[in-house]
Amino acid sequence: MKAGKKRDRLFEPVQKRERVYAGSYLNLDRLTIRLPNGKKAFREIVNVRNAVAVLPVDKDGTAYLVRQHRPAIKRTIIEIPAGVVDSKRESLEKCARRECEEETGIIPGRLRRLLTYSHAEGYSTGFITLFLATNLRHTGKLNLDQTEFLEQVKMPYAKLLRMIEKGGIVDSKTILCAMLSRRYLPF
Amino acid sequence: MKAGKKRDRLFEPVQKRERVYAGSYLNLDRLTIRLPNGKKAFREIVNVRNAVAVLPVDKDGTAYLVRQHRPAIKRTIIEIPAGVVDSKRESLEKCARRECEEETGIIPGRLRRLLTYSHAEGYSTGFITLFLATNLRHTGKLNLDQTEFLEQVKMPYAKLLRMIEKGGIVDSKTILCAMLSRRYLPF
Repeated sequence: MKAGKKRDRLFEPVQKRERVYAGSYLNLDRLTIRLPNGKKAFREIVNVRNAVAVLPVDKDGTAYLVRQHRPAIKRTIIEIPAGVVDSKRESLEKCARRECEEETGIIPGRLRRLLTYSHAEGYSTGFITLFLATNLRHTGKLNLDQTEFLEQVKMPYAKLLRMIEKGGIVDSKTILCAMLSRRYLPF
Repeated sequence: MKAGKKRDRLFEPVQKRERVYAGSYLNLDRLTIRLPNGKKAFREIVNVRNAVAVLPVDKDGTAYLVRQHRPAIKRTIIEIPAGVVDSKRESLEKCARRECEEETGIIPGRLRRLLTYSHAEGYSTGFITLFLATNLRHTGKLNLDQTEFLEQVKMPYAKLLRMIEKGGIVDSKTILCAMLSRRYLPF
């Protein structure tokens, strides 16, 4: 019952990997794994690219977010700017700056890296890295994809925290990023 | 730029839904949606059942977790007990009690519901509801599935928070549940 190095006993090696769906946003693989007891089992794994998300907060305490429709959960939600990393050559910081500027028209002067986490460790390969952006420069110019429709939303950072308390923010990246930013913000 | 009711302008109605993969843990649908500009687009959506996760903390500040191999991220990780809701008739609280007992041999005396969140709003239907469990009763009896291999891990709650700081905990449910439990725990 103590935390130590026992990972070998739990390791489940992959014996076979079948691509059962190749899509534009994600691929689906069906893995045959060997359980610790030697038996076979199957795991369905969604392959997605890693992503970044960034919370821009101005020196007056204003937080900049976006409103976006999410067909997967059938809701239009308020969330922080985010997007997938374009290639292995794009650094996470560069991606965070790009997504922030494209979706809000704001260039971060300072980016603080807060956390990298797995958003669905049971079935997805995806990790998200969270940033707090401060020292903001407002360009007023957005740059959205042809199939990306979103609206800019601004609110006091303190109100964002209250919305989280009340269940008004539902996505993990916005909740985590807002909570983890607390220590760096005086609001 | 203010938070209001504008969801109609962003709503993307589903015009067609194709099941492209029917699996045991998840199903994959390809949706044809209508964008706000009238054009068509596609969204790949993973259908999974909702889940619960629960952090049991004893009156001496000991937190009970599990170590489990996660082929999706190729890592063996420490996380809180969790599982999918069995049916529409099983309440979230009942499911949290069941999973806690099955995976740790601990029956929660008191359950506090902390948050319900979407773990991958971009492509998955799944929501996770988080609980803090206190007033614990230790039965010492586990009840794991045939294909479920995990080890029990205990550590001080304060150490769990430090592990999160250092990047030693990577899954959203454990990070969020530990952070949100803080206000209810004196440790």
